[in-house]
Amino acid sequence: MAIDQQISLDDLCVNTIRTLSIDAVQQANSGHPGMPLGAAPAAYVLWQHFLKFNPKDPNWPDRDRFVLSAGHASMLLYSLLHLYGYDVSLDEIKRFRQWESITPGHPEHGLTPGVETTTGPLGQGISNAVGMAIAEAHLAAIFNRPGHEIVNHRTFVFASDGDMMEGVSHEACAIAGHLRLNKLIVVYDDNKVMLSGPTSEAMSEDVGSRFEAYGWYVQRIDGNNRNELENAYNNAVQERERPSLIVSRTHIGFASPLQDSYKAHGSPLGADNVKKTKQNLGWQWEEPFYIPPQTLEHFHEASKRGEQLQQDWQQRFSAYAQAYPDLAAQWTSMMSGALPDGYDSAIPTWSPADNKGEMSTRVASGKVINAVAPKLPALMGGSADLATSNETLIEGEGLFSAEDRVGRNMNFGVREHGMGAILSGMALHGGLIPYGGTFLTFSDYMRGAIRLAALMGVRVIYIFTHDSIGLGEDGPTHQPIEQLAALRAIPGLTVIRPADANETAYAWRAALANSNGPTALALTRQNLPILDQNQVAPASNVERGGYIISEAQGGDPEVILIATGSEVSLCLQAQQQLAAKGTRARVVSMPCTEIFDKQPQQYRDQVLPPNITKRLAVEAAVPMSWHKYVGLQGDVLGLTHYGASAPYKVLYEKFGFTPENIAARALALLGRA
Amino acid sequence: MAIDQQISLDDLCVNTIRTLSIDAVQQANSGHPGMPLGAAPAAYVLWQHFLKFNPKDPNWPDRDRFVLSAGHASMLLYSLLHLYGYDVSLDEIKRFRQWESITPGHPEHGLTPGVETTTGPLGQGISNAVGMAIAEAHLAAIFNRPGHEIVNHRTFVFASDGDMMEGVSHEACAIAGHLRLNKLIVVYDDNKVMLSGPTSEAMSEDVGSRFEAYGWYVQRIDGNNRNELENAYNNAVQERERPSLIVSRTHIGFASPLQDSYKAHGSPLGADNVKKTKQNLGWQWEEPFYIPPQTLEHFHEASKRGEQLQQDWQQRFSAYAQAYPDLAAQWTSMMSGALPDGYDSAIPTWSPADNKGEMSTRVASGKVINAVAPKLPALMGGSADLATSNETLIEGEGLFSAEDRVGRNMNFGVREHGMGAILSGMALHGGLIPYGGTFLTFSDYMRGAIRLAALMGVRVIYIFTHDSIGLGEDGPTHQPIEQLAALRAIPGLTVIRPADANETAYAWRAALANSNGPTALALTRQNLPILDQNQVAPASNVERGGYIISEAQGGDPEVILIATGSEVSLCLQAQQQLAAKGTRARVVSMPCTEIFDKQPQQYRDQVLPPNITKRLAVEAAVPMSWHKYVGLQGDVLGLTHYGASAPYKVLYEKFGFTPENIAARALALLGRA
Repeated sequence: MAIDQQISLDDLCVNTIRTLSIDAVQQANSGHPGMPLGAAPAAYVLWQHFLKFNPKDPNWPDRDRFVLSAGHASMLLYSLLHLYGYDVSLDEIKRFRQWESITPGHPEHGLTPGVETTTGPLGQGISNAVGMAIAEAHLAAIFNRPGHEIVNHRTFVFASDGDMMEGVSHEACAIAGHLRLNKLIVVYDDNKVMLSGPTSEAMSEDVGSRFEAYGWYVQRIDGNNRNELENAYNNAVQERERPSLIVSRTHIGFASPLQDSYKAHGSPLGADNVKKTKQNLGWQWEEPFYIPPQTLEHFHEASKRGEQLQQDWQQRFSAYAQAYPDLAAQWTSMMSGALPDGYDSAIPTWSPADNKGEMSTRVASGKVINAVAPKLPALMGGSADLATSNETLIEGEGLFSAEDRVGRNMNFGVREHGMGAILSGMALHGGLIPYGGTFLTFSDYMRGAIRLAALMGVRVIYIFTHDSIGLGEDGPTHQPIEQLAALRAIPGLTVIRPADANETAYAWRAALANSNGPTALALTRQNLPILDQNQVAPASNVERGGYIISEAQGGDPEVILIATGSEVSLCLQAQQQLAAKGTRARVVSMPCTEIFDKQPQQYRDQVLPPNITKRLAVEAAVPMSWHKYVGLQGDVLGLTHYGASAPYKVLYEKFGFTPENIAARALALLGRA
Repeated sequence: MAIDQQISLDDLCVNTIRTLSIDAVQQANSGHPGMPLGAAPAAYVLWQHFLKFNPKDPNWPDRDRFVLSAGHASMLLYSLLHLYGYDVSLDEIKRFRQWESITPGHPEHGLTPGVETTTGPLGQGISNAVGMAIAEAHLAAIFNRPGHEIVNHRTFVFASDGDMMEGVSHEACAIAGHLRLNKLIVVYDDNKVMLSGPTSEAMSEDVGSRFEAYGWYVQRIDGNNRNELENAYNNAVQERERPSLIVSRTHIGFASPLQDSYKAHGSPLGADNVKKTKQNLGWQWEEPFYIPPQTLEHFHEASKRGEQLQQDWQQRFSAYAQAYPDLAAQWTSMMSGALPDGYDSAIPTWSPADNKGEMSTRVASGKVINAVAPKLPALMGGSADLATSNETLIEGEGLFSAEDRVGRNMNFGVREHGMGAILSGMALHGGLIPYGGTFLTFSDYMRGAIRLAALMGVRVIYIFTHDSIGLGEDGPTHQPIEQLAALRAIPGLTVIRPADANETAYAWRAALANSNGPTALALTRQNLPILDQNQVAPASNVERGGYIISEAQGGDPEVILIATGSEVSLCLQAQQQLAAKGTRARVVSMPCTEIFDKQPQQYRDQVLPPNITKRLAVEAAVPMSWHKYVGLQGDVLGLTHYGASAPYKVLYEKFGFTPENIAARALALLGRA
């Protein structure tokens, strides 16, 4: 009895995905076998018949994006990538979850070809996908011309109950419904089992109805039935108005003795159960990692179709480039991620004669955005319902919406976490430099997304305004205290807190130039003096992270004042007060410790000479970031408690952020108090 | 024409709430006038006819809880508190948002009588309220007896569109629906206006339908119509199965010239508009902060009703105490928050003879929970779908659910942020010591809630397991790197990372004893050696935060190794290797920097003598926390990059967390490399 008589080639392909996945988990003795077993049919039907992809060029700009939001099911994705011919070898499959393999526990973008985003922390992938779909819709509106569709792809997502439970998915999917992102198609792998037990222990919501409330097109199908799957994908692809949710009822650990049990979720099945699963599937081969040749041939038919699709697209793009050379050049430029020459030429330099000598750094940031936006069409972003506070609006541009796909301003609503994940998705898509604003305090809400942006190294710019007790009356719930340190702690995130309008301009330049990672700008609500570029060192020194903004006069410095943001001008005043008392103080502006730490030792020693150990760091925030620079013989003027509700000048006075107190602390360090 | 002929007393009361609120915002020249104007009728009908409260005793245990989740509308709450006779004087109303007033920009629990939780960061209050309703349901099931209902109150919430957009509200409200918390009643102030514009710019979801998908009872009413409001509250109060959402259509800035505009949201109306608003309301008095005497009389009738209700309850409680003296004593004990004598007597001391000499600190934590749970009925908690990983289960206890209100185990689903806010709500309610677990990395998801717990000073215990690269194969998405520093940065949060099973027991004691703030326990996935209490200093030293766990032999120490958690035993091995090479090293276990920093200077100098400047801190995490202790002449063996997916022993080796490398780094510090 030949297997082909019993089991169709389609079945065999699905089972190849399944067995490869559980073999790898078994070999690693670690991983999640349950979802690959259950979701394999949905994956197979999608990749075989709908997904537009070319394994030979995983970066083809017009490919469909496939996001495995349920990243714990990574072996499902690695099996697909291997079987469809991506550069993921069988050896790598066998080295699942091992040191320096490209098949880590959870999919990592940049490590493995075909992995569109790093997933695992639940809710992130589905939210990144919303950003990818936004990018597609915007770029399509900008670049497509009648008869020339060069941007026309979909974003497909596989999501789990965990993705649905996480708040970030609520935020992002509500936005997707609002924006009517019809080319976003989410398969909800509804297997009724969480890691620790049946979903009935914690989840009663009707996910489909919830998404209907968001304005999505919802279908409910049997995820083991390939006809139903094919039909559902067809309907979703044809939908012109709404994003799609396919509620795909599946069985975790399908065909294994642990089917429908949480025991199939997060642990290897065990050698015996692997054997029994294969028996139950009618699998004929004992050898682990066996791939029937006829399946490989079949998988590769889909890959060849994709290859052809890319060739067609290439021809279309050539025709487009002939018809619209300027647009094609702009497309190429935007997709390259490079900053156009002279993009920053309209950024002004401010002097104390401007604006009555004062400007908040948030206002300066808004002016920089508007100075660069005309020359930097890739720049697109907005705020989590604080546009006027965060100064994120690009003047003269519309609001990106269901009706206006060209608009570059975005209103994310009060959805910081969703915004964060969406920004990453936009950056991952390519072609855009996304930014998003909220109050610095509420960076807390979006750390899950910020961390993954940093881990992936995507260029996203966070505009965190109201960056201290200087926001005043809103009080301690809104005043950041620990956020600067907490953000600086994130590896790969660049945090810049500029001291005035001119430093803000260079902070923005640094952020835009930082194409390998996210940047967080910490900006004031309150006005700050515009420092006279003829009196202090040039603000362009921001690119070194920290610099001597004002040297001690009349001899070597006795004490170094190190400050960021709003506290720099206080230190400059303290420097004068100290000078009047015969004490020589150097003031170091340190807008970015991450960049400073990357400077050569010689430069760092020049700014902070090892022999000058009397150092006072001043920042209206927890001191944690500063001990590294001031050491045991230095001091930090910071805040080790929460703020209060009052006008900000009162708070600065009450909490000791005055030139007088800074000078007093410096004198105390020198034993001259 | 007397006002009474035109305007009913009810109208006048509503308008008194309104005018008082906008006058205060105007005087502060800062704040949010729009929602108090729009939501005043809903507040008035609730407080006047439904809410069970006694201004004379804001802490009456059986009061209804009122949560203003939309904390920016703080003046609505302060007006209510003043008018109904809480100890919030008119002077305090006039000092809205000023230094040391009890009327800060956003409501702060503990500062102002009648403020049940600190709100302002959106989504938190409504989620705290879910925790309050859980606490009520659980305590009612534990303590009520036929004919003796001593726990029987409701939790009312006023929420805004921002609350609804935030992901945390999705998480918590999905849980509330699952748990069928019918005594939770949320008024959604549906005014169609966000801070930056109409909600139509960012929000299309049908909130009512979404909550129906969660299993809530949803009513849709005109929030300006007192009859509809009264009817809706009546229905909600009578509902026996489901939590209630009342979608109350209102008008932001009602009766002001800015009605229905976002301009009425977050800024004072302006003197002119205040005047016009009062005219539009038919308000007869020019004097700001004027309160018509007849309204005050009317408000106080409701307050007197509440006073009577508390007296009735007191009588009922007396009868209960006679009928069930043991239960009444237990109730009193639990509500006091005190730890019963000997609650910890069953916690074992472990020795290297136990458990093959090894135990992960997460397993030790689980054993401690189970050792104290029988004597500490207030202890209740669970995990965000990682119960078996986090070791959070109380054996022999049921799962708290719609069917079982007695169960003390909770399954929050994959909803870390919702869990965090719910835990705070349970603690705020009183009677419980709540705990919740997830992986340390995912503390990022719940920082919004952790911060507010710390700001409020509520006793919540976070069980953060899988606390380093030591979790192994799950890889960098799951391996915490920056979380320890980021959590330590939060003022008021106590972070404890115990070195072995015995330190874990004392970490738990410290957490339980810390009744004025939250504690985060960082626990390993991997096994650690059980340190021999006869060889090292007693683990009870955890209560000092840091201590000399093993002194250098043969003379004063030349170098100090400072470590936490899993790295302590590595340092103990390094100490021996160094001794073999003739180098004297002291090992300091520093499970909690917050507690250590509070010790007397003398003790701290004893542990870290100022003259010993060669100090090496060792923690498999970002170094940021440690510069404070090692200074410029010391060193930190940490991680400044993300982890990787591989078995944990490989990772520890590859990343240099070995006794050999620690010894080498120590020797390098001493110039003996």
